[in-house]
Amino acid sequence: MSDKIRLASVGLGRWANVLARGVQRSDLIEIHSCYSRSEDNRAEFMATHGVPKSAVSYDELLADPDVEGVVLTTPNDTHADLVIAGLEAGKAVYTDKPIAQTLSDAFAIRDAVERTGGVFAVGHSARRLSGCRVIKKGIDDGTLGGVSLIEANFSNERGLELTPETWRWYLSKTPGGPLIQLGVHHADNLQYLMGPVKGVSAHQRKLYTESEVPDATMAICEFESGALGYLGCGWASPGIYQIRVQGTKRNLLYDLDFTHWDESHEADRWSTLQSQVYGEQERTPVHLPPTDMFREQLEEFGLAARGQATIEVDADAAIRALAVVHAAIASNEQKGRMIDVDEFLASAGG
Amino acid sequence: MSDKIRLASVGLGRWANVLARGVQRSDLIEIHSCYSRSEDNRAEFMATHGVPKSAVSYDELLADPDVEGVVLTTPNDTHADLVIAGLEAGKAVYTDKPIAQTLSDAFAIRDAVERTGGVFAVGHSARRLSGCRVIKKGIDDGTLGGVSLIEANFSNERGLELTPETWRWYLSKTPGGPLIQLGVHHADNLQYLMGPVKGVSAHQRKLYTESEVPDATMAICEFESGALGYLGCGWASPGIYQIRVQGTKRNLLYDLDFTHWDESHEADRWSTLQSQVYGEQERTPVHLPPTDMFREQLEEFGLAARGQATIEVDADAAIRALAVVHAAIASNEQKGRMIDVDEFLASAGG
Repeated sequence: MSDKIRLASVGLGRWANVLARGVQRSDLIEIHSCYSRSEDNRAEFMATHGVPKSAVSYDELLADPDVEGVVLTTPNDTHADLVIAGLEAGKAVYTDKPIAQTLSDAFAIRDAVERTGGVFAVGHSARRLSGCRVIKKGIDDGTLGGVSLIEANFSNERGLELTPETWRWYLSKTPGGPLIQLGVHHADNLQYLMGPVKGVSAHQRKLYTESEVPDATMAICEFESGALGYLGCGWASPGIYQIRVQGTKRNLLYDLDFTHWDESHEADRWSTLQSQVYGEQERTPVHLPPTDMFREQLEEFGLAARGQATIEVDADAAIRALAVVHAAIASNEQKGRMIDVDEFLASAGG
Repeated sequence: MSDKIRLASVGLGRWANVLARGVQRSDLIEIHSCYSRSEDNRAEFMATHGVPKSAVSYDELLADPDVEGVVLTTPNDTHADLVIAGLEAGKAVYTDKPIAQTLSDAFAIRDAVERTGGVFAVGHSARRLSGCRVIKKGIDDGTLGGVSLIEANFSNERGLELTPETWRWYLSKTPGGPLIQLGVHHADNLQYLMGPVKGVSAHQRKLYTESEVPDATMAICEFESGALGYLGCGWASPGIYQIRVQGTKRNLLYDLDFTHWDESHEADRWSTLQSQVYGEQERTPVHLPPTDMFREQLEEFGLAARGQATIEVDADAAIRALAVVHAAIASNEQKGRMIDVDEFLASAGG
């Protein structure tokens, strides 16, 4: 057995494969075991990624003393049970975003983290993209001056391709549609960049998808700083991933070709960040140091499982992102009236 | 005297000079006379643009039988009186956007147009930019498929440079700040592209300007088609002018380098339109046939004054753009609750 940190994949769909390829790019971590209900999926996952073991149940996987951390890519409404069981079994647990489907599930996860003292991470990988990191630096070091407006869009064609066989088809499993699946990334990015969102005002419509969920959503956020943020998410068009920040001294315009999202070690090569300085005519490209968001977040998780790293996106940060999503859904039901996020969290029991 | 159509400039500030340069690029129209209260401004305008005449009062200018059309670039709250006097004197009248500051002024203008049967045009020039024309064609001919989301941003640094000597400093003269000065262009563009806006939900903040007006505004529009539109306008950052449309078959992403806005015959050279087709990896640039929005709109106006053209943006279209602005201001006062534009117009007396 190598000395790499041993992770186990649970829920072996498309996303587990994307993350497994990220793990394979690492010298620090490896996939040691895996579990899904389907024996075929387990066999295929082991063969594809050279995973030495599988478990026939989640309990069996958790009982394996060799497994140091569990990587969950199961449907959102299964996160809470699986995370809590993992933590209680003494494993470090990583779940893909959102932290959970509901805020009450998310609070239960946070309570379990506190109770067990375990290591817990949420896959808000997008903030690790080079463009986001460079924007963060420019905001924090004053290069941008005072930021008044920030706009973000994350959209793709998913809503046009959903079938009733997929959980994302159903409103009961994917409230908000693209807002909870894609937009939650930007709900994290926006707060990572600009600090806490104070209020959310939003509208959503179901236009072209045959599924139950909305495929057009727009939200306006007010940050505690007073600045305004826009979050657009659609599920009925080719993919878009953008962030634009407008500062008194400089604008930064970030654009990632979404078709290269899955291969995160290549994403920066397919990205541009343009800088537009007050009083200057020409925009200039900003260098994007290479990143690999999926590898990096799983390495951080693995190292944290051994007590050698701190988790960047913990339960509190992930709850804040999910709260923006659910406050947006609530605002839509009230004709866009701005919902106070702190009050909304308190009324949800947080 | 040449056979060119003879226009007269009224209000000889910065914008009158931009439009005069547009006129000079035309073989059809010329500036024949001018008026502002300042004798110095009249003399300078005549010298700069080779204008043969000036008038010492607006009445004198309107009494000049050689003047076929009046081009107004005066503050928004002066439009109604000047437009109505011009129409009643039998002149064709062009006013820069917005049609007026208030909806009641705009209704008075519309009534005067109907009463006099005169020619009236509003300078919603931005829809004439090549990028907007090409997007319109792509929406109308089905190239984009069904459009679910459209985003527009028009921002510049104006709020950081305002002084109490300028009318834009005052909330009583510029309600909404960048929303009524810049955003009204996109309020027209969005409805030109997508049809009437049904509802508006908006937020505005005053963050960095020392003036009275907001410098950060965001609005979400619902079109009668059900699609959602976003309109961002700031006055506290370097300039941005963008439109992004997301269709089931194709996205179109339009970006104009705002620093080249004033020289409209060059604006398309500083613009890009990118096409992103469903299922294809690479974006492709779309050719932008050259346009010259200021020249073209004033040629249309001049020809209409002689009965040889139809005005594209008349009082009704301009009122619809202004209604979106004022509904957004009203929505902000109601925490972003979506305002029905037809009801809003009716309650304003329209």
